Amino acid sequence: MEPTNQNKHQAFQQDQKNRGRLLITCPDQRGIVAAVSQFLATHQANIIESSQYSTNPEGGDFFIRIEFECPDLDSKKTLLQEEFETIAQRFSMEWTLSFVHDLKRAAIFVSKELHCLRELLLEWENEDLVMDIPLVVSNHPEAKNFVESFGIPFVHIPANKNNRQEAEQQQLKLLEEHDIDVIILARYMQILTPAFVETYSEKIINIHHSFLPAFVGAKPYDRAFDRGVKLIGATSHYVTNDLDEGPIIEQDIKRVSHRDQVEDLKKNGRIIERSVLVRAVRWHVDDRIIVHDNKTIIF
Amino acid sequence: MEPTNQNKHQAFQQDQKNRGRLLITCPDQRGIVAAVSQFLATHQANIIESSQYSTNPEGGDFFIRIEFECPDLDSKKTLLQEEFETIAQRFSMEWTLSFVHDLKRAAIFVSKELHCLRELLLEWENEDLVMDIPLVVSNHPEAKNFVESFGIPFVHIPANKNNRQEAEQQQLKLLEEHDIDVIILARYMQILTPAFVETYSEKIINIHHSFLPAFVGAKPYDRAFDRGVKLIGATSHYVTNDLDEGPIIEQDIKRVSHRDQVEDLKKNGRIIERSVLVRAVRWHVDDRIIVHDNKTIIF
Amino acid sequence: MEPTNQNKHQAFQQDQKNRGRLLITCPDQRGIVAAVSQFLATHQANIIESSQYSTNPEGGDFFIRIEFECPDLDSKKTLLQEEFETIAQRFSMEWTLSFVHDLKRAAIFVSKELHCLRELLLEWENEDLVMDIPLVVSNHPEAKNFVESFGIPFVHIPANKNNRQEAEQQQLKLLEEHDIDVIILARYMQILTPAFVETYSEKIINIHHSFLPAFVGAKPYDRAFDRGVKLIGATSHYVTNDLDEGPIIEQDIKRVSHRDQVEDLKKNGRIIERSVLVRAVRWHVDDRIIVHDNKTIIF
Amino acid sequence: MEPTNQNKHQAFQQDQKNRGRLLITCPDQRGIVAAVSQFLATHQANIIESSQYSTNPEGGDFFIRIEFECPDLDSKKTLLQEEFETIAQRFSMEWTLSFVHDLKRAAIFVSKELHCLRELLLEWENEDLVMDIPLVVSNHPEAKNFVESFGIPFVHIPANKNNRQEAEQQQLKLLEEHDIDVIILARYMQILTPAFVETYSEKIINIHHSFLPAFVGAKPYDRAFDRGVKLIGATSHYVTNDLDEGPIIEQDIKRVSHRDQVEDLKKNGRIIERSVLVRAVRWHVDDRIIVHDNKTIIF
Repeated sequence: MEPTNQNKHQAFQQDQKNRGRLLITCPDQRGIVAAVSQFLATHQANIIESSQYSTNPEGGDFFIRIEFECPDLDSKKTLLQEEFETIAQRFSMEWTLSFVHDLKRAAIFVSKELHCLRELLLEWENEDLVMDIPLVVSNHPEAKNFVESFGIPFVHIPANKNNRQEAEQQQLKLLEEHDIDVIILARYMQILTPAFVETYSEKIINIHHSFLPAFVGAKPYDRAFDRGVKLIGATSHYVTNDLDEGPIIEQDIKRVSHRDQVEDLKKNGRIIERSVLVRAVRWHVDDRIIVHDNKTIIF
Repeated sequence: MEPTNQNKHQAFQQDQKNRGRLLITCPDQRGIVAAVSQFLATHQANIIESSQYSTNPEGGDFFIRIEFECPDLDSKKTLLQEEFETIAQRFSMEWTLSFVHDLKRAAIFVSKELHCLRELLLEWENEDLVMDIPLVVSNHPEAKNFVESFGIPFVHIPANKNNRQEAEQQQLKLLEEHDIDVIILARYMQILTPAFVETYSEKIINIHHSFLPAFVGAKPYDRAFDRGVKLIGATSHYVTNDLDEGPIIEQDIKRVSHRDQVEDLKKNGRIIERSVLVRAVRWHVDDRIIVHDNKTIIF
Repeated sequence: MEPTNQNKHQAFQQDQKNRGRLLITCPDQRGIVAAVSQFLATHQANIIESSQYSTNPEGGDFFIRIEFECPDLDSKKTLLQEEFETIAQRFSMEWTLSFVHDLKRAAIFVSKELHCLRELLLEWENEDLVMDIPLVVSNHPEAKNFVESFGIPFVHIPANKNNRQEAEQQQLKLLEEHDIDVIILARYMQILTPAFVETYSEKIINIHHSFLPAFVGAKPYDRAFDRGVKLIGATSHYVTNDLDEGPIIEQDIKRVSHRDQVEDLKKNGRIIERSVLVRAVRWHVDDRIIVHDNKTIIF
Repeated sequence: MEPTNQNKHQAFQQDQKNRGRLLITCPDQRGIVAAVSQFLATHQANIIESSQYSTNPEGGDFFIRIEFECPDLDSKKTLLQEEFETIAQRFSMEWTLSFVHDLKRAAIFVSKELHCLRELLLEWENEDLVMDIPLVVSNHPEAKNFVESFGIPFVHIPANKNNRQEAEQQQLKLLEEHDIDVIILARYMQILTPAFVETYSEKIINIHHSFLPAFVGAKPYDRAFDRGVKLIGATSHYVTNDLDEGPIIEQDIKRVSHRDQVEDLKKNGRIIERSVLVRAVRWHVDDRIIVHDNKTIIF
């Protein structure tokens, strides 16, 4: 992996250099919090924020997110990972321990409609969205200048129904080269193959321009107009191989009226699409999401 | 028709005794507003509020709602109705002229869940919803005391799949006797027959406990829970013979989270169901709604 | 204390008989969560929900709310209270341990405007608000029938500027007799004396009909109208002896327009006042609020 | 006036070439709508949208906005202006007749915080905000590259307390040269002199970072944090010489919690500031606003 061109979030990284996050899923039982908090206290870590959720206290599943501050965290990373394994095994945990200063590496995929891309880059520029963006990929050339004006490489890979395999080969190669953690489909209008989706399972975030499960599939604003709805919506979700059926991360709506024609619904929709997608991405890079049973738990 | 037991809105009726409303639908063309406003000026009526909408200025449909104040309105009702007919014919209008002091007469249908009924009666008691309520009909006895404490007659008509015809015969007889203008299904859990619906076409207002068109049909909260949505909704619509497909009057949503179980969705849903239904009813009794093409125009 | 007339929430109490809640405030330091969760695990308690907050991880204040399920809780109450004292002293904690089946006992104070009272009683009737309501106190007789129809005693204590002392003596006597935990001012239009407020410090919840700190004091809707605001608000807060300056619990707003006259602002305001007050009361009876530094932490 | 560098909205201008708008204020009386609509019908104009408002039907003020489509509008502009004067005098009207294809010319003033500027330019780029932007003025150089990437001239005029007069002289000269209709203060952190404000009376739109009238003046987010509010707001208003007291155009809010520090309030505030400002500007350029009595009527 080559170094990225972004060092804009260095102050953040320095500020957060001792900050870690634990995300845990396991069968519910007594003593989990005690064991984990004891482990952290032993390593001089102070719990800063903690949220937990149980589907059912009697024999259900248990989920917790803990953010902690630990002196000299950088030098203790391996140790913590190794020692936590004992607790994890005892409680049959699935877990991840992440370090806030190791920024997530995001690739943004876009087509012709640029409003979601623009919002992501402006929030990133503003430091309201902290991650690395090693590249933007598009099947159209329109976004090139805008993207490059932020110092971010733009890669144009024409993609359509007929060359899907080859296009994805190119994309996968780039994603691997750039060590990408999360793919953001910012109104990317191509369907991904099952193989691609499985490679990045729970790591592809899409924005769908309707209030799911209403208006699954194509042309949701046209269908919302035909139905005469009074609110339109947008939904951000992880991509699975069932169209628009993946775990929902965030949704929002905007009021419309009989005066709004299809074009007006689209215009209003752009406002919610971009804010919903940014919130979903922010929660993902902040390690706030656990996917369970095709739903999301957002801490 | 016997007199109703309600004279609680007498002050309102006195205050609004010269207030009239015109609702008009016709093919769009030049000169409509000029002709109607000239007609009103000739009869010394002052336009208080006016809203219009065209689907398309070139050969589309035109809709207008005009609220006016006219001295001695009571003595001019017949005259206005007759004279307006000339204009109506010239522009091929469908129209209604209503007089605000002639309160709409509403029948409320309810089953076991009473939150929507309660909200309607409290808003009515508060004079925030001005109409006559000559009767409340239920297929269960639960609401009896609450309804009668407002001085409103309560009629218990057991209804279920097997006696639908007879039950509706009783209901229709009551509705006619009480000269009912609008039927409010306040979580009434029985399906109405096509004959019943046609008798009160565009006069039956239902509240559906989902954000239509998502979760049409039964158990919407259970299905919303299963899908993991982040917002739940409620929709008020006119009843047609296509289940949950009638013209939407109003919708609203409320944010939920992974912590909310089905029971929590229902609890939160009750809050939006009742406010959405009350808004829809208020717009109906204020003559703010025109139904066109299975959609509503809300002025 | 005589028994109250309410046993409507018995099913809830039975269902929650092993449920307890810890609310803790203390100086932040390492090991708090470990110690508390260890304590609970030792007593076979399973943590169901836990939220914490630190003003500043370095030398700030630490707050936590833990809800737990503990077998045979009823028989362990005293033991838990006593044994927790050791931990509390070690970390200099202020803390309360409450038992969910011991319902909070609320007195509602009301004047002539009844919309907030009605909402509270209907939510209570619906079991969406679980507490005992041993009495409703009013300086006007209007609410009597409505309150008594719920089987709740209604006490009319005329109160005004001139008899404030005597009226409060009567009220305080009743509050003590009925062992009241929380006083809800549901648009009670009398000012309370400093002595009264101190007796029930952080236990009196008021609803103010503006978006505080805008429009502190009298006639907020008139002033909102004069200023031409586009949103009106309501604020629920704990009462202190600084008028409308107590810790804010909850706020909400509603959009208005130039068409809305003062009466319309009041009508719309009633909708938010009642929902804001109910949310605030629900959080209070669910032990979700810690007051700190004239602000609230809502878990 | 030299031609601006922007012809990006040509398609819109062509599409709207026959579209006009009348904004009228006058004492209320019978016959206004009849006279105006008769005038338009006489000139073959078809009313597309019409909204009116009366402060009080008896002797109050009357306001109306009419949007119409008139064949060959360009050749009739002078004629319409002249002939309408007769009606205007008869009813003592203040009025403006504007032509939609004559785009409003906006100057944007900005300082160091660029989120509002960015939102305005992206909406403009998207054609969701249709106006000419002949220049952006700033007292800091930061925005230069971003602004120029849109092909819009950027002028850096250092301004501070000490050189206010000279800076404003330069600004006024530019505004006049570029024939500016509206000035948008997109977080411009300098106070304008009374003379400047009077020159552009009801033509300067500001965004204030609080829910006015709460937190008038400096550092509203710090003060919101100190008060512990649960919602933060933003307000767009016309600038007058009373600080933050001008007619409010639009407001919105966002929910915050005890977890949000001042920096978080600012981050959340940026999201509402930019959307509130864009809505206000859109209504202004769409001739939807009448200022009356230090309030706005928004049609």
